[in-house]
Amino acid sequence: VPRTASVDDADLIARLLADFNDEYGDPRPPVEQLAARLRELMEAGDTAVALADGDLGVAVLRLRPNLWSTAREAYLAELYVVPDRRGQGLGRPLLEHALDLARSLGADRVELGTSEDDVAARKLYEKCGFTRFEGEGGPLMFVYEREL
Amino acid sequence: VPRTASVDDADLIARLLADFNDEYGDPRPPVEQLAARLRELMEAGDTAVALADGDLGVAVLRLRPNLWSTAREAYLAELYVVPDRRGQGLGRPLLEHALDLARSLGADRVELGTSEDDVAARKLYEKCGFTRFEGEGGPLMFVYEREL
Repeated sequence: VPRTASVDDADLIARLLADFNDEYGDPRPPVEQLAARLRELMEAGDTAVALADGDLGVAVLRLRPNLWSTAREAYLAELYVVPDRRGQGLGRPLLEHALDLARSLGADRVELGTSEDDVAARKLYEKCGFTRFEGEGGPLMFVYEREL
Repeated sequence: VPRTASVDDADLIARLLADFNDEYGDPRPPVEQLAARLRELMEAGDTAVALADGDLGVAVLRLRPNLWSTAREAYLAELYVVPDRRGQGLGRPLLEHALDLARSLGADRVELGTSEDDVAARKLYEKCGFTRFEGEGGPLMFVYEREL
């Protein structure tokens, strides 16, 4: 069963996120620095984390006040299951736990960005009620980004 | 020349954003409620706004600490130019002012979500250095969202 992480889990979360970035060759800070940042953000209340059964995966939520309502809005910043435990049904309960967590923290919507290539994750998001279309039968929604 | 809005501009910003949503038939709170929310978020420092020359457009930035660096990250939540002044070159300086503003507020990256249909905005983002691809020649990045 997935669980909601506490600040005491920051080292474990940082290790999982570091492994995630290393798997995809993405740059990252040292694990200790990432753990310190996580502690800071979790304590400030703008970041909440769910851990999969056996700590074999992690979901990171960022929260902020929603401009368009009096609630908060959530952003699913990271979703990761360790490589040798994929395809075994850990992702869905982890994601559902994260959605419940976002709801319990006052969010009324959740958004995420994912790559066209990430077919397994996209299937999971679609099974869990996410859409990449703007409205029924509407156009696709793209993420655009740049460094500053 | 675009300018950085202050909290005193909240009513004007709310009016522009309300017009934006009305143009696309998107639901929105009453203008007074939106203005109050803007004041609250701008005072809290998580929201910054740029206004186009003559107040004919608006760009709304949301800011938060970047998990992956010691900087902040920015999200361009809204970009709007009034209908009868589109195609007259107001968008680019407005967007560039918003990027400078994000930088001056400590952000090291900026992200946004936009629809496939919004061809003029997408061209502007691409001219201003944004990409919708993950890495050079990489896959597209999609926004997924759901209500909670």
